[in-house]
Amino acid sequence: MVVKALTTQHSALKIQIWGAKFVGVKLGILGLGTVGTGTVQLLQDAVGRNPLLQEVEIYRVGVRSLDKPRDVKLPQSVVTTDLAAIVNDPAVDIVVELMGGLEPARSLILQAIKNGKHIVTANKAAIARFGAEIFNAANEAGVYVMLEAAVGGGIPVIQPLKQALSVNRIHTVTGIVNGTTNYILTRMQTEGSDFGDVLADAQRLGYAEADPTADIDGLDAADKIAILASLGFGGRIHLEDVYCEGIRQVSKTDITYAEKLGFVIKLLAIAKSQGNNHPGLSVRVHPTFVPKSHPLASINGVYNAILVEGEPIGQVMFFGPGAGAGATASAVTSDILSLVAALESNTAVPNPLLTCRHEDYCQITPVSQLLTRFYARFLTKDHPGVIGKLGTCFGNYGVSLESVVQTGFQGALAEIVVVTHDVKEGDFRQALDEIRHLEAIDSIASILRVL
Amino acid sequence: MVVKALTTQHSALKIQIWGAKFVGVKLGILGLGTVGTGTVQLLQDAVGRNPLLQEVEIYRVGVRSLDKPRDVKLPQSVVTTDLAAIVNDPAVDIVVELMGGLEPARSLILQAIKNGKHIVTANKAAIARFGAEIFNAANEAGVYVMLEAAVGGGIPVIQPLKQALSVNRIHTVTGIVNGTTNYILTRMQTEGSDFGDVLADAQRLGYAEADPTADIDGLDAADKIAILASLGFGGRIHLEDVYCEGIRQVSKTDITYAEKLGFVIKLLAIAKSQGNNHPGLSVRVHPTFVPKSHPLASINGVYNAILVEGEPIGQVMFFGPGAGAGATASAVTSDILSLVAALESNTAVPNPLLTCRHEDYCQITPVSQLLTRFYARFLTKDHPGVIGKLGTCFGNYGVSLESVVQTGFQGALAEIVVVTHDVKEGDFRQALDEIRHLEAIDSIASILRVL
Repeated sequence: MVVKALTTQHSALKIQIWGAKFVGVKLGILGLGTVGTGTVQLLQDAVGRNPLLQEVEIYRVGVRSLDKPRDVKLPQSVVTTDLAAIVNDPAVDIVVELMGGLEPARSLILQAIKNGKHIVTANKAAIARFGAEIFNAANEAGVYVMLEAAVGGGIPVIQPLKQALSVNRIHTVTGIVNGTTNYILTRMQTEGSDFGDVLADAQRLGYAEADPTADIDGLDAADKIAILASLGFGGRIHLEDVYCEGIRQVSKTDITYAEKLGFVIKLLAIAKSQGNNHPGLSVRVHPTFVPKSHPLASINGVYNAILVEGEPIGQVMFFGPGAGAGATASAVTSDILSLVAALESNTAVPNPLLTCRHEDYCQITPVSQLLTRFYARFLTKDHPGVIGKLGTCFGNYGVSLESVVQTGFQGALAEIVVVTHDVKEGDFRQALDEIRHLEAIDSIASILRVL
Repeated sequence: MVVKALTTQHSALKIQIWGAKFVGVKLGILGLGTVGTGTVQLLQDAVGRNPLLQEVEIYRVGVRSLDKPRDVKLPQSVVTTDLAAIVNDPAVDIVVELMGGLEPARSLILQAIKNGKHIVTANKAAIARFGAEIFNAANEAGVYVMLEAAVGGGIPVIQPLKQALSVNRIHTVTGIVNGTTNYILTRMQTEGSDFGDVLADAQRLGYAEADPTADIDGLDAADKIAILASLGFGGRIHLEDVYCEGIRQVSKTDITYAEKLGFVIKLLAIAKSQGNNHPGLSVRVHPTFVPKSHPLASINGVYNAILVEGEPIGQVMFFGPGAGAGATASAVTSDILSLVAALESNTAVPNPLLTCRHEDYCQITPVSQLLTRFYARFLTKDHPGVIGKLGTCFGNYGVSLESVVQTGFQGALAEIVVVTHDVKEGDFRQALDEIRHLEAIDSIASILRVL
């Protein structure tokens, strides 16, 4: 990281001398949607909050349309549709990017950084894809890029991972980081409903988007676990290395079996070190059988939670609202607060806890090398000895079974549920390929990983 | 706060010039018990942790006895029984106080501060009692006092409360902050055992001290909620204003009734703003009926959790190990890390997010003014109309009842359980005084607050 001379490092410092009174920080906010509006409301109503917020000025707010009715009042001179002018304005100290999406967010962030401005962003998609480019530029320019709001909504989890928990050797970061899918799975579980019905209702109620792909297929969670993995394990992550499986395939039948076996099904985002003898990190998103006694099992509805495991701390979990204007505004503003404090305390050298400290990429273990337990449900023709044949096939590939239960019938087909011990995913898949061709097997109805 | 000139503010800075390479931070650790040993072990094994820790030198460790066998290896020149020499040593940058207890901890901390050293402490008892004196001295000297390990063991909760969450208006901080009592209550609940039996077993297993008073009577939790309240609500707390009730009175009968009514009993530490129309803060520790659906209801065993509620964030909860060498060492070291980063980034003015920003005391609402729900269990002579008499007495004092149930008999006495709506505690107590004198009432077996 290039350490710049004092006067170029922070634009706010240009007008300061040592010990002089701090003169305030000017924000250029890009975007006045839900989160932007929440953030402006919070900042305009600063009494009873951290007094440092009173040193923040909402100097410019960039919007797409000046005509749209807004829930906040802002002077006409503050609001503009010229976003480039904001990131190029020499008076702006911090650019707060709340537009979302990839472009022009990426270009505007990079231009702002080039101009020596600090960045606060809630844009997980842009950070997960362009993080390397953005953080390299920020290190070059000697500015900070803050992203508390990118993961877990209002939950303070980015700062603890970067700072307090970084004294640990992190083993695992496991999160329920997508509220929409957790809401759907929770309702499927409590109501015994089918995925499609709950999704339709969630869309009607505003808990799911009209195009739910990013949530339902796990893509949003993949962005977030890429960011958390990067912070927890101190290396960058190629987003395409994140294995991703959504919840479309989760059936109410599986939720019922999970319940009977002592589990609930959650969409987990997991980053896990494979241990000393297995170098590399597995980073993945998939619906998962979670034991009912596990701290993440009781996280229901739209709430998010992130469980961090490390040495010597053991388990620590952060729980809270994963989305919403107020919660996300809290996270955005906490980043603004950190920057105001850093600017006020006049640092000559960037605070190493606020900068991005890694430049290498993590070595990612392909999912075929993953060690995990599995649940699988088979529909079989009711041949005698079918359980024996299943067991033999699994045994041929070193897959050790924890339980095999014939649970009932679906029409003429017998249903058999298998839970394995820890196996290498590739071995398990090979066994399945062989099982699929057994005469007695009608179909494999579902395959889910078990925590 | 007095802002000192650069060279006197941080001793580590005396040997720095702008942009020069950072030369490391020297620790003087006071105490080599469980937490001290855990901290030294963590620092001596820095690979795979935040690289800033490699800039930390364990320069002096103060112990009571040089002869005691230790689980860590330290050069003879590092270990000393002369604690005063450590806090007076000009080379020491940070004093890490892990002795516990009130004296000489307080005097050593104050002397270290006077000598311009930053402080990291896990000493909730000293901070809860002498916080005002210690923080005033620190502000005067321009040094930081860090206390992440004082509450919640390894859970990062002090930093989030001071920093990220401080952009919210905090309404309530509610914690399960004492592992011993939570362990006992959890076992009473799962085993249906009596308090005395579980306590004896917990002592045998090392989960409770030989003298369990500080834990069992809520004093440890009171220290901790005083600290959390101070951070959450931005004012100091007189420890004697914290209302405190322990768990000795909790019976297995009440735990059974709680279960039937949809609650679990937890020792909660609560700091709650009484709202806009009721100025003042209630700060208290007492066993509490917690609805089973509440996030704190499922925190079991020795785990701790702290729930923070505020505007606009809503609810956010932190969960993790509340004690233990490794977890507490993680918190202690996270504070050391923050100081190393602050020293490395060469701040000319103290970072306002790391200093204590309040000097006034919070206005505390006496418990008689508290608005809360109550559970009470009465043993009554089986007179006809006793429920009516109870209802009339409560009505006379404006106490509105949610439910009144005659639950069974204890010998010749009928047992009646009452749950109220929100009432002013003083009114409820007055009603109880009258009820106690009713001919039909044998005794009031238990009174517990309901969340």
